[in-house]
Amino acid sequence: MIKVGIVGYGNLGRGVTLAVNNAEDMQCVGIFTRRNPSELKPVVDFPVYSVDELQKFKGQIDVLLLCGGSATDLPQNTAKLLKDFNTVDSFDTHAKIPEYFEKLDKVAKENGTLSAISIGWDPGVFSIARMLFGAVLPNGCDYTFWGKGVSQGHSDAIRRIDGVKNAIQYTIPKQEALESVRNGLNPSLTTRQKHLRECFVAVEEGADKLSIEKTIKEMPNYFADYDTIVNFVSEQEVKDMQKKLSHGGFVFRSGNTTEENAHLLELSLKLDSNPEFTGSVLTAYGRAVARLAKEGVTGCVTVYDVPLKYLSPMTNEQLRAKLL
Amino acid sequence: MIKVGIVGYGNLGRGVTLAVNNAEDMQCVGIFTRRNPSELKPVVDFPVYSVDELQKFKGQIDVLLLCGGSATDLPQNTAKLLKDFNTVDSFDTHAKIPEYFEKLDKVAKENGTLSAISIGWDPGVFSIARMLFGAVLPNGCDYTFWGKGVSQGHSDAIRRIDGVKNAIQYTIPKQEALESVRNGLNPSLTTRQKHLRECFVAVEEGADKLSIEKTIKEMPNYFADYDTIVNFVSEQEVKDMQKKLSHGGFVFRSGNTTEENAHLLELSLKLDSNPEFTGSVLTAYGRAVARLAKEGVTGCVTVYDVPLKYLSPMTNEQLRAKLL
Repeated sequence: MIKVGIVGYGNLGRGVTLAVNNAEDMQCVGIFTRRNPSELKPVVDFPVYSVDELQKFKGQIDVLLLCGGSATDLPQNTAKLLKDFNTVDSFDTHAKIPEYFEKLDKVAKENGTLSAISIGWDPGVFSIARMLFGAVLPNGCDYTFWGKGVSQGHSDAIRRIDGVKNAIQYTIPKQEALESVRNGLNPSLTTRQKHLRECFVAVEEGADKLSIEKTIKEMPNYFADYDTIVNFVSEQEVKDMQKKLSHGGFVFRSGNTTEENAHLLELSLKLDSNPEFTGSVLTAYGRAVARLAKEGVTGCVTVYDVPLKYLSPMTNEQLRAKLL
Repeated sequence: MIKVGIVGYGNLGRGVTLAVNNAEDMQCVGIFTRRNPSELKPVVDFPVYSVDELQKFKGQIDVLLLCGGSATDLPQNTAKLLKDFNTVDSFDTHAKIPEYFEKLDKVAKENGTLSAISIGWDPGVFSIARMLFGAVLPNGCDYTFWGKGVSQGHSDAIRRIDGVKNAIQYTIPKQEALESVRNGLNPSLTTRQKHLRECFVAVEEGADKLSIEKTIKEMPNYFADYDTIVNFVSEQEVKDMQKKLSHGGFVFRSGNTTEENAHLLELSLKLDSNPEFTGSVLTAYGRAVARLAKEGVTGCVTVYDVPLKYLSPMTNEQLRAKLL
């Protein structure tokens, strides 16, 4: 049995808890939280400890599944945890991945531990598709589309506007862009042509809706480069929408082997629950990290470094006989 | 530069030749043929030798890309070649993969060489999808659909019927089956419900068409379990159809993380040229085998054993910065 610890219990921690409970080759040593452990009632009856007690479990946990966020939790904590534990995380700030990798690789090698970073669906499963597709079809164009799904960062940005009580933002791929890629047209697509942003905003009594709408639509980096739809709704409506955590997207590679022969490779995900699926991916890579660490591998790895067989509870013989 | 040899020059050999020519980090030492080398004019001006001369190139070739068939070429030749060379092949007789693997693994380990088997799109890219999807969504159903594309084995089976001059058979996924999977219905599909078989047959003058159609439709293993359409056409029409080598297919994983949350993962390929795309995949794995062999890896491997980073000409740093 692979012994895992789950660090953090938000939406992702809950998803990981479900996935670990579902894995027959895994045993959960504990969920480690910053909250008061006695107040946390996880979806599966695993033991709950304060994250301050984690240190005591050194040597009793094969891998920690880190369920914190990429903004502050992971940059602050992963390197510290790596001194004593192997880890898997879902670090998804694309621009900072190289720097995060280098830092963790150094710590892990110094301490003889192993860290898999940026695991989930993007980065993660989508990263695999982008790389594999590019390697097997070198002359071509890449397209990644996200949605329909909630962008947490964009929702947060709206909530910071004066007069806004709550808000949720959906990223939606534009159908005409998807179709032109699917038809092998290899279009050059601007940011605006690829995705639409639809916002549902609850405002305070007497707030200036026109001004809020303008502020959203003109917000640089977040909305200015997109076609943005702003809907004003009640606080309850926003709350109800926030319960649904569906997401998904598409990775395409469209290219040629000769002038006359074109090929289209497509991966798509339709996810009812972003955190439950991400948690399930994290858990599969937890299995891989535990196994690789047992073989003596140390340092930092990504989906590009881990042979796929390590993700499956099946033996190599079973994989070859049943899935190859 | 990775030095490759191409063994066999049929449709697949031609596809590999194009892919190697397109790879900036590869150099083709030669195409090795069973035909008279002076009579072979390859699509790219690589040197051509008799396969009997291959032995002389021992030590000068990093990896051989084997372009023979799975019925006789590969089972007869790969083990012999592995004594002196690293190899990549597209062995696709699914039922015989375990036995083929064991045999080559032994030979390769004894001789300090490396062999990647069953490389292409199925087995190959589709095998990766089946395994990855299953590992990240353990509670679910798998579906693989092939086509629309030519099945060489089924076309051969028709050609063996008395009175048939030439024939081509297309495997076509049934739209209603695809839709029910895409809609997350997790259907139990019979062979007949998944694929349709459409045949185009040219017969000899005076041949009994009714009897030929009956023979095709009732042929056990090949057609009896399918809805089969038989069209009688001219020899020229069959010949024209044989020039187009398009193929493709779909891998689905449909499942749940909790009762209320379902997920659908889909990989699809639309290929204008089956042999050119297969050749391109074989070439990417040739890169991987050359690199892994240099690191001292020996034995037999499949897509499940090779970390994806080895397939790309990009450095690990570039992969993390640009694709992750």
